[in-house]
Amino acid sequence: MLRIITQQAEATTELRRICDRTSQEEILHKEATVREVLQAVKRQGDKALLHYTEEFDNQILTPEQLRVSGSELDAAYQQISKELLDAIQLAARQVEAFHRQRVPKSWVQFGDDDVVLGKRYTPVDRAGLYVPGGRASYPSTVLMNAIPAKVAKVPRIVMVTPPGPHKKINPAVLVAAQEAGVTEIYRVGGAQAIAALAYGTETIPKVNLITGPGNIYVTLAKKLIYGSVGIDSLAGPSEVLIIADSSANPVYVAADMLAQAEHDPMAAAILLTTDTQLAKKVQLEVERQLHNHPRRLLTEKAIAHYGLIAIVDSLETAAELSNEFAPEHLELEIAEPWDLVEKIRHAGAIFLGTSTPEAVGDYLAGPNHTLPTSGAARYASALSVETFMKHSSLIQYSHTALNKVAGAIQILTEAEGLPSHGDSVLFRTQGYPDD
Amino acid sequence: MLRIITQQAEATTELRRICDRTSQEEILHKEATVREVLQAVKRQGDKALLHYTEEFDNQILTPEQLRVSGSELDAAYQQISKELLDAIQLAARQVEAFHRQRVPKSWVQFGDDDVVLGKRYTPVDRAGLYVPGGRASYPSTVLMNAIPAKVAKVPRIVMVTPPGPHKKINPAVLVAAQEAGVTEIYRVGGAQAIAALAYGTETIPKVNLITGPGNIYVTLAKKLIYGSVGIDSLAGPSEVLIIADSSANPVYVAADMLAQAEHDPMAAAILLTTDTQLAKKVQLEVERQLHNHPRRLLTEKAIAHYGLIAIVDSLETAAELSNEFAPEHLELEIAEPWDLVEKIRHAGAIFLGTSTPEAVGDYLAGPNHTLPTSGAARYASALSVETFMKHSSLIQYSHTALNKVAGAIQILTEAEGLPSHGDSVLFRTQGYPDD
Repeated sequence: MLRIITQQAEATTELRRICDRTSQEEILHKEATVREVLQAVKRQGDKALLHYTEEFDNQILTPEQLRVSGSELDAAYQQISKELLDAIQLAARQVEAFHRQRVPKSWVQFGDDDVVLGKRYTPVDRAGLYVPGGRASYPSTVLMNAIPAKVAKVPRIVMVTPPGPHKKINPAVLVAAQEAGVTEIYRVGGAQAIAALAYGTETIPKVNLITGPGNIYVTLAKKLIYGSVGIDSLAGPSEVLIIADSSANPVYVAADMLAQAEHDPMAAAILLTTDTQLAKKVQLEVERQLHNHPRRLLTEKAIAHYGLIAIVDSLETAAELSNEFAPEHLELEIAEPWDLVEKIRHAGAIFLGTSTPEAVGDYLAGPNHTLPTSGAARYASALSVETFMKHSSLIQYSHTALNKVAGAIQILTEAEGLPSHGDSVLFRTQGYPDD
Repeated sequence: MLRIITQQAEATTELRRICDRTSQEEILHKEATVREVLQAVKRQGDKALLHYTEEFDNQILTPEQLRVSGSELDAAYQQISKELLDAIQLAARQVEAFHRQRVPKSWVQFGDDDVVLGKRYTPVDRAGLYVPGGRASYPSTVLMNAIPAKVAKVPRIVMVTPPGPHKKINPAVLVAAQEAGVTEIYRVGGAQAIAALAYGTETIPKVNLITGPGNIYVTLAKKLIYGSVGIDSLAGPSEVLIIADSSANPVYVAADMLAQAEHDPMAAAILLTTDTQLAKKVQLEVERQLHNHPRRLLTEKAIAHYGLIAIVDSLETAAELSNEFAPEHLELEIAEPWDLVEKIRHAGAIFLGTSTPEAVGDYLAGPNHTLPTSGAARYASALSVETFMKHSSLIQYSHTALNKVAGAIQILTEAEGLPSHGDSVLFRTQGYPDD
């Protein structure tokens, strides 16, 4: 049964517990295994990939089978329904349209004395995209990760995903990859796939940046290789926080909470409401909707451990509690959602009003569904086109301009004890001492 | 003596060696120590900070002495020259002016059927800024890290820096901090300072994001705590790559290479030139300028291990080699620098023409001097106002708009096996099955 809490102090404590639910101890425990996998792939390349694919995914591959072939890619289109293809294409179009908004552009500005300053934006050369297998093999994940890379004009978008039974990969995932502009796909998953992308093997190219969600091994591998290559974020289990007033519909709120909980036994679903009656109705509705739920066991576990309803005295209090939690997804199921938005400081994505279930953003509204979890919204944002780009500062000084600042630079270099820094300006403005 | 290489294959190999000069083994070796420090600070707070400050910095502090007092901050202004204050203020103004360009702004767009999509930008609540002590205690580091945070409107900018002899902190650093808008300063350094910022102690507030350079222990601590809080990057030793043609002045080029080498025995200084005569002159000039260099021993070490001149057949080849290296600083000491810029794909900052020594950007041109090192320019950028901000996606659908996409979402949720995702849309558009 979904708990209802009425004391704010207790709500604060519980929200903190839920936010910190990813166990650091469990992570440390698995680190040795992941380090071993990374080292093996670094040293032995494809050979290690095939070894771990047999060990962890129970699939025996040859090196030639690592790469998904053109005929398999073509065949995927025959294996999904016309309706699913249409839906994937609609989602791809909308996601692409949103990501094309405000793509960073290179710029320069011209100052006094012919000084030129600016920023030049360029895409990474190669992006690696991890797509989980099994229960979490989602075409939407592919779209949300590959489309920003495509919009950023990344020349090579390399996808990895573990093979299922009979070495197969979900055809919907293969179709989504093609629609989203992925340039090559490899049949490998887990920490070994991250290692392959980070170091390169005979078959898989080394990339510059790795994005995409995964299990604890994948996340740990991403953390360990960070610095050799870039990563998007360290994704934890998913979460939704809903702020609702008496205008909210308990049936919708309950469905939205379950839509989060059904992802993962570690997923979190939280409701903060000013309305005690709504709280009780949502509690009953969650039970009712769970009754015949196809993923009941898993979903119930999430609701029991990381589900929560808290009664709050005002929407302002709800906003403050939400800011402390910094949710991945925040739904404002209230009469005037835009009035509360300005009080929200930290949230991955904000869904406003009663006709905006999180699912609309998960699939096709346009904004990215790869969002900061576990409180990371305090400092991080959705995956975006910027994730796949970087900029170089541009600086050009003229002799006149350099002359004007030479004295100040000289004083600063002396204060910092860096004589050649000073000389590099002095020689240009005053000539070489021997001259 | 600075080596000259004439074969391109050898140049490629050497550039790779230099780019990968940070030893992963050395890092692993120190990880146990850093983990222990992090754990101790997490458990014991201030007590652990005082313990490690005595052990590593030889300074015995009371908890009250951790925070730099108002009178010490005031006194710092009396301890530096008027000229240095002026120079710090000039640098602060120019850095701030540059960082005020193109600060991200929140936006919304209105689509068909009353769909609203957008992004809301907000600053982090608290930023932590690490400033090294001893030889590398630089006021410019303070400006370059604190000013973007100030421009981003971060409410609390918390600085940490280790105490020197007699518990003192470089007064120029204290002045720079005040000019740049730092809100509080604590006298603690090393991995223990990073732990304090990440977990909070009785005296030091927990922050959301930690920026700033440091030694190997600081960098390792940043990597380990990443995920609990955000970090800017994992800074390695500094580097410059200079592309020069026959128009370049060997005296300037040599001074610029030494200005990099004098930072650190691990710093790298590379010249790629089409002109054999220039190569020889630079080689001699480096010797000459090293002769009476106040930091000769350290600087010679860097030049010997990570200094290099390579003769290339064309500027295009130089650009390609530079892209493979992805330098932190790139100087184009060539007749037509803007013609080559478009061939540069990866570089932290690009300095164009003969009157733009790197030092002008290090101190006061405006762009940030905190730049990606060790090849990280392939995926990362300069520290910027964006580093201290994050965005929330905004999504609002109307009932009409939701109706139009309900079918497509339904098909996608079925393909992904997530029934409550489907229900959350179905209940809103078709009503509850029991109704």
